[in-house]
This record gives sequence, structure tokens and C-alpha cells, in this order.
Amino acid sequence: MQHPGFFRRGDPMSVQSIVTAVGAELSVLSDGVTEIDDLRALNDASVTHLSFCTGPRYARELVATNAGACLIKRRDLSLMPKRVVPIITDTPHRAFAMAIGLFYPSSLQPEATAAMADGRLVHPTAEIADDVTIEPGAVVGREAKIGEGTTIAAGAVVGYRVFVGRDCYIGPAASVTHALIGDRVTLHAGARLGQDGFGYAVSPEGHFKIPQIGRVIVGDDVEIGANSTVDRGFLTDTKIGEGTKIDNLVQIGHNAVVGRHCIIVSQAGIAGSVQLGDFVVMGAQSGVVEHVKVGDGALIAGMAHVKNDVAAGARMGGTPARPFAEWAREVAAVRRLGKNSRQAQT
Amino acid sequence: MQHPGFFRRGDPMSVQSIVTAVGAELSVLSDGVTEIDDLRALNDASVTHLSFCTGPRYARELVATNAGACLIKRRDLSLMPKRVVPIITDTPHRAFAMAIGLFYPSSLQPEATAAMADGRLVHPTAEIADDVTIEPGAVVGREAKIGEGTTIAAGAVVGYRVFVGRDCYIGPAASVTHALIGDRVTLHAGARLGQDGFGYAVSPEGHFKIPQIGRVIVGDDVEIGANSTVDRGFLTDTKIGEGTKIDNLVQIGHNAVVGRHCIIVSQAGIAGSVQLGDFVVMGAQSGVVEHVKVGDGALIAGMAHVKNDVAAGARMGGTPARPFAEWAREVAAVRRLGKNSRQAQT
Amino acid sequence: MQHPGFFRRGDPMSVQSIVTAVGAELSVLSDGVTEIDDLRALNDASVTHLSFCTGPRYARELVATNAGACLIKRRDLSLMPKRVVPIITDTPHRAFAMAIGLFYPSSLQPEATAAMADGRLVHPTAEIADDVTIEPGAVVGREAKIGEGTTIAAGAVVGYRVFVGRDCYIGPAASVTHALIGDRVTLHAGARLGQDGFGYAVSPEGHFKIPQIGRVIVGDDVEIGANSTVDRGFLTDTKIGEGTKIDNLVQIGHNAVVGRHCIIVSQAGIAGSVQLGDFVVMGAQSGVVEHVKVGDGALIAGMAHVKNDVAAGARMGGTPARPFAEWAREVAAVRRLGKNSRQAQT
Repeated sequence: MQHPGFFRRGDPMSVQSIVTAVGAELSVLSDGVTEIDDLRALNDASVTHLSFCTGPRYARELVATNAGACLIKRRDLSLMPKRVVPIITDTPHRAFAMAIGLFYPSSLQPEATAAMADGRLVHPTAEIADDVTIEPGAVVGREAKIGEGTTIAAGAVVGYRVFVGRDCYIGPAASVTHALIGDRVTLHAGARLGQDGFGYAVSPEGHFKIPQIGRVIVGDDVEIGANSTVDRGFLTDTKIGEGTKIDNLVQIGHNAVVGRHCIIVSQAGIAGSVQLGDFVVMGAQSGVVEHVKVGDGALIAGMAHVKNDVAAGARMGGTPARPFAEWAREVAAVRRLGKNSRQAQT
Repeated sequence: MQHPGFFRRGDPMSVQSIVTAVGAELSVLSDGVTEIDDLRALNDASVTHLSFCTGPRYARELVATNAGACLIKRRDLSLMPKRVVPIITDTPHRAFAMAIGLFYPSSLQPEATAAMADGRLVHPTAEIADDVTIEPGAVVGREAKIGEGTTIAAGAVVGYRVFVGRDCYIGPAASVTHALIGDRVTLHAGARLGQDGFGYAVSPEGHFKIPQIGRVIVGDDVEIGANSTVDRGFLTDTKIGEGTKIDNLVQIGHNAVVGRHCIIVSQAGIAGSVQLGDFVVMGAQSGVVEHVKVGDGALIAGMAHVKNDVAAGARMGGTPARPFAEWAREVAAVRRLGKNSRQAQT
Repeated sequence: MQHPGFFRRGDPMSVQSIVTAVGAELSVLSDGVTEIDDLRALNDASVTHLSFCTGPRYARELVATNAGACLIKRRDLSLMPKRVVPIITDTPHRAFAMAIGLFYPSSLQPEATAAMADGRLVHPTAEIADDVTIEPGAVVGREAKIGEGTTIAAGAVVGYRVFVGRDCYIGPAASVTHALIGDRVTLHAGARLGQDGFGYAVSPEGHFKIPQIGRVIVGDDVEIGANSTVDRGFLTDTKIGEGTKIDNLVQIGHNAVVGRHCIIVSQAGIAGSVQLGDFVVMGAQSGVVEHVKVGDGALIAGMAHVKNDVAAGARMGGTPARPFAEWAREVAAVRRLGKNSRQAQT
């Protein structure tokens, strides 16, 4: 992702200025003049980027990173490759959150549409193609673009700079911010796209909000159900692949990547940074835990909850989810156990 | 259900025109001039209706149908009664979806309120009874009717031709389309009634949307919680019986029929075509799988998930749901099993 | 809680007038002239208050109550302390609901913002501090107060008399009624605060709505996710403690008290009158049953469902939830059982 888009990035800064601003420390051997111009995760960073490492579990990413500088705890300094400037802090996650605020000050001042003083609901700078229907009470923000043949239903909100393709339907009272939407996409009533992901630097003193500067990218022919929620990415984008159909009241967390032509049934939950392949089916009220990968064509039964990676084509059920056959055997075995315990009692 | 209401039905068509339009085939023996004027499921169809059969599992409905014509795979032709004109296609479900678009072209062009050019939020053709309160920012669509004593709260959307009875409360930012609402009904903030059901002709090339031309019918004295969702029916109606109370974040799928005086607690899910009797109680986060029937007065415990029909008065718990006593025995038996395994380890 | 605030309380009434209005009966020995000026639960009531007792399970609260009068069934009369005037009825819960309507008539006529005749979206009596941004389509009700630096995003609804502190963000199409919101609070798109709790006097003839006259109180630095719902209290308040972070599609029932710095992950459900301590973590799709208390720092795993009180610092998983170690042993034991049953079959 190229960050700029929804949040304006400030000027480059020296490592020393960052250190001062986030209340960190520079080792005496380090060069504070190195210039940093953006922020990335360890595996996405290059030499002008600041990154962060919260502990030894990220040692592999740390060793391989191309970041110019990295926020790190003193005790983890030995894991750091020589080419990266270490910035020492007890709270790398929190310091990184502060650095986002430094580089992207507008990420700290949330807005949906960018206000207009005159009471008009459609901003004069919005580009509205021919043959667009904007129903009563719908709001279209500054610099938004709406493609030909699209309908923005009553009470819907299309945020600042949001792009909506052709022949889309943004349902009543739905809201879309920080998002790029393909063609022939339907968002049903009350769907929520682009709000902040759920990210905090957690601590015993309280939880520090991590600004979320990614976007939501929705492919062509996607349908998203009523009151479903899709959070925007943290540093990268949340993506919904073309042709994917999402039912009502589904949650999709930040950085999740949903493949093409998936079917996600009502009240399912996809946690942050999950990756679903193509043609994955998730049944009603099922869930996938964060960072899990689900292969192409896998089937997650209704109410199943997936904690580990799932192979392509696998069929999983139960909590925690296991292959169908195994799950069925366990359900049957428990049933026999219950029956036997009754007989033992009588 | 009489379809016309929310979607205008086009003129009758000959079987031959349908065949051509959906890219199907007519057997040489068949009469292409038979006239079709509407679309129905096999068991609801009469002689001027087109229906569809996706495979042998619907053989019983097929044998009994009164449809005038039916979309069917070549391999299933032998199951078809002589009186029905077979229309041969590899994809009956998808072809039926295309036929809906033929008969109901407006079902392909979603709209919530029918647009007004002049920025007014209440359409001049809406019939608003005396003593109705319409709060700021609320939208009332073309030809909607609002009964005496009803309040439409701020930001709520009442769609095109929607009927709302007397002494109702449509909460802030709720939306109602394609629905008929009785008297003394409360829809809490953000409730969503009447959006498309989740219906697709699924295929390895992608999923083809099935237009949904049914409605939502809500009886008197019903209450529907904040951000709950009730999809409109596919060919028939989704119905909520009088006096039923539905909590927040509940999902009710298309064609579901919920009886009178039911209690549906928060985050429960009722899949498509489920039938609940009267005085059914569903606990929080419980679910019922599609096409299941639940008898009068049955109790589904919180978090239970029902996969098979439930008898009147039954009390069910667990996943998959089973009678309370059985479920309790199994939970106890597993608990003993766990305890014994610990003792074996120590 | 001091009730008056969102609902105007009427004049004091004699016990005799209440008896007549709710269709109850006074014992011949009782003094009908005792004056009642408000309504409370048994344990919150003092001598000028009316309370109610639905049966012997509340005997302890009944014995200790300081209520002036109490609705009670004839069969439970012997449990009543002498100092309380008994009001005899077959349906104490329903009669209490009727009494709420007597004292708080406006609780029977729901409204979100209090209507304005002139089409303006921000009521002229609302107090809007300096440096407040009100985006297009947002509605601010009568006598609401919005603190400095706060943004009300497009399509959001801030209800009648709602107080919103400084530097808050009320997201697009969110709604807040009957609530007091602290400083630096974020409500994401479509969040619903302050609607009626799910309370009915249930009976075989149907369910009688209990008016909900409490509020929602939200502490400083709270974040509430997209399309989450927080019901207002029944007689007391629903409270979210400072620094608590709530993800998307979470349900929080009436009278729930959530402590400080809790983390409630997506699609979790907190039933009515639950009490969470400080720094509690609830995983995705987990749930806590009504009236349960969860101690400080407890961890409820994703998908776990808590039915009994949880000690401070405990780690619970499974349905019904049990300590982590126990839960893991049971999962492992069932897995072995399933595996053995397969070997037995082959």
C-alpha cells in the first residue's frame, strides 16, 4: 500500500526527532540524523522507514527487516541487525503508535466526510458521474468519486475521498469511509466500512490507541450484508476479493484479506490479519482467530471456530475446529458417553 | 403472497421468450407458446407460473407441482410430470434468477426510497396520518403510509411504499424497505428490515445473485432490537408474528416465519426459511439452521444451535442442540472424563 | 441514580391511586394514603418508593427493603416486612411496569431527539461548545450539550438532553440517546447507545413491555465499535468504565456495569445486569449470562460462555466456561475418545 490517500503524511524526520517526540532513547553508538519518511511493519519496511518490535517472538522478522530504524526494548537489542538504527523504549508498540501520530497527524482527528459549513449534503468537490441516484438524506463527502449508474440510498454516508465504482448500491444508512469500492458492489443497509481497526498498545496503566492508517479495498461484484462491519487496515489494507458475498452482521477485522468468490454467512467473524483464500465458505456464527490462513475452497461449518491454519479444500467443524470426520466421531462418542452415564445411574 | 407491491411485474411472456432470454433449451415435443405470467416455488406454483428444480432432492415437490413450466436439468427430465413444460438448462437456479429479472426488472435496480430531486426528506406522495412525529433528518419515501400516532425518529429511513401502522416507533437511523408493519411496533435504533435475502446461484465460476421479490410482514406489538436485521423474502414473505419481542443484533433470514409472542434474545440467528411456532424462546447467541421447524413453546437455550426440527414444548441445549437432560448428562460426563484424565496424569 | 433527567417524573401519588390505576388490591389493614414519589428495585428503595417482588426467590431482598409499598402476590404476603404496605396483584412485574408509566408518562412515548418543526437538524436549544464539528446530515436534539473539540460525523444522531464531553468522535450514522458521555470517547459508525433494554413481564397471554427509565453512562477514553449496541438501564444505569475498549457488533444489556480498561472483542455479548471488574478481557464471540459477576483482570477466552461468577484473575474457556486447564484437559480427553472410537471401528 502507498499510505497517502486518506491521511496526509507529514515531512520526513530525523531519528533524533522521533526519539525525542516519543520519549525513547538512542544508543550512544547510533546515528540520530538518519532520515525517516514513513512507517511500516518489519517485513514491509525499507531503509527510510521506521518499524517496531515488541519482543523475541518477532526475531525472525527483525533479522530480515530492511527498516531504517526500529523501536525495541533494551533487553531485545541483541536480536537487532547492525544495519538498523535501534530506538530504545520500554513500550515499542505504544511508541510506534505515537510515531504514527507524528507522521500522520490527521489520523488523530477522525472525520467521516470532512465538514461543510453550508448544510449541503453532497460536497461540491465530490465527482458524481452521470446517471447516479442520490436519495434524500444521503451524504457524499469532500473529493469522493461516485461511478456511473450507482445509487446512494437514503441516509447513506460516503466519506471523504472514498471511491465508489459503477452500478453500485450503497444501502440506506450504510457508511463507507477510507475505502475504495469496485464496480457492481452492493452494501446493504447499515453496513460499516472503513472505521478504525481494534488496535491498542495494551498495558496495566490502560490501553493506548494505535491510529489506523490503512484502507478497505473492495473488489467488483462484492455484496456486503446489512449491519456488517469491515474495519480499515492498520498499516496495510483490509481487502475483500471480487465476487465475494457477505451476509448480515458479519465482522471483518483490520488487515484481513478475504479472497475471491467466498461465501460468508450471517454473524460469522473474521479476526484481524486473517487470510482467506478463494471460494472459502464460512457458515453462520463461525469464526476465525487472528493471523490464521484458510486455504482455497475450504469449508468452515456453521458455529465452527478456527484457531489454526486450514488447508485448501479442508472441511472443518466444531470448537476448536477440526476435520469434519473427526468432529463427527467426537460428537458421537460424547453422545454415547452421556447415554452410558444415564444407564449407569438407572 | 401476491407479488406486486414493491416490484412492478412486467407483461406475461411465452415460454419460448423465456427460453431465449435465459439461454435455455426447449424439448422438441414442447409447446413454446404457453403463456407465463409469474414465478413461484414448485409447491406454490399454478398453471401460469414458471418454477425451477435444481435436482432429484426436489422430486416430490416436482411430481406434485401445478406449475405451467419448469426449469430443469436434462438428466432430471424423467422426474417431470407430463403436464409441466420442461425448460432445459444446466443451471436451473441461475436461469430462474434471470427470469425474475425478466418479469421484475426493477428488482435488479435497488432503491430504498425512490429518489426526489428537490432535497425534501419526506416525499410529497407519502400519506402521513394526523399526529405523526417525523424527527429531523428522517426520510419517508414515495407512496409510503404512516399511521396515526407513529414517530419516525431522527435519521430513520422508511422506504418506498412501506406501510407503517399506528402508534409505532421507528428508532433513530433504522431503515425499513419492502415491508408492511402493524400497529404499536417498535423498531429500535439501526434495525434493518427489508433488504435482500442472501441468495445466490453458487458455481465454480462465481455466484449469481438471485433477486429477492418478497416482503417483510411484521405483526402488531412486535419489538425489534437495535441493529437487528430482517431480510425480505425471496418469492414469499418473511413474517414476524404479533407480540414477538426481538433483542439487539439478531439476524432473521429470508422467508423465515416467526410465530406470535416469541422471545428472541440478543445475537441469536434464525436462518432462511426457518419456521418458529408461537411462544418460542431463543436464548442469546443461539441459532437455528435453515429450513428447520421449531414447535410452539419450545425453548432453545443460550448458545445452542439447532440443526433438526424441534417438537413443541421441547427444551434444547448445546451444539448440535439436544434435549436439556441429554445435554446436561453429556456435559457432566465430559467433565468427569477430563477430571479422570488429570488423575491419570498425576 | 436520580431518575429525572431523560424522563420527567410526575407528582407523588397515594398508594390508593396506584392500586386503582394498576388494577391491584389493598389489604383491609393497609393504609392507602401513604404517599409514593418514585419507583425502585427492592434493594434501592426508601420509604417514599414503590417496589415489587415477583416471588420467594427475592425473599432476602424483601425482608431487607426500605420501600414504602411493594407489589406482591397474595401467596407471598407472609414474606413481607410489616413496615412495607403490600399491594396485592397476580402480576407484580406487570403492575410495576404500569406504575412506571404512571410516574413517567413520557417513558411510554419514545422519542430520540424531540422533534423540530422547521427542518433544522441541530436544535436551537442544543449547547454546542467552540470548536465542535458537526458534519452534514448529523442531528443534535433538544437541550443536548456537545463539548469542545468534539466531532459529530455525518448522519449521526445525538438525542434529547444527551451530554457529550470534549474531544469525542460520534461516528457516521451512530445514535446516542438517554446517555451521558465522557471526554475523548469514540463511538464508531452505527454504534447504538441508549435504546430500551429488553425487558418484558412475560406471560402466556403475551409479553408486557417494561418501560426503561435508566441511562447509559460512558466514562472518559472509552471506544465503542461499529454497530455495537448498549441498552440503557431499567431503573439504574448501564455503565461503561473509563478507558474500556469495545470492538464491533458487541451487545451490552441493560443495567450492565463494565469496569475500567476492559477489552471486549468483536461479537461478544454481555447480558443484562452483568458486572465486569476492571481490566477484564472478553474474547471474540464470547458471552456472559445475566446477573453474573466477573472479577478484575479475568480473561474470558474467545467463544467461551460464562454462566457463573468468575473470580478475579481467572482464565476461563469453553461452553459452559471453566478454568483454562480444565477446559484444555476436557478437549484433549474428547479428542482421544474420538480417536479411540475410530480405532474400534476399523
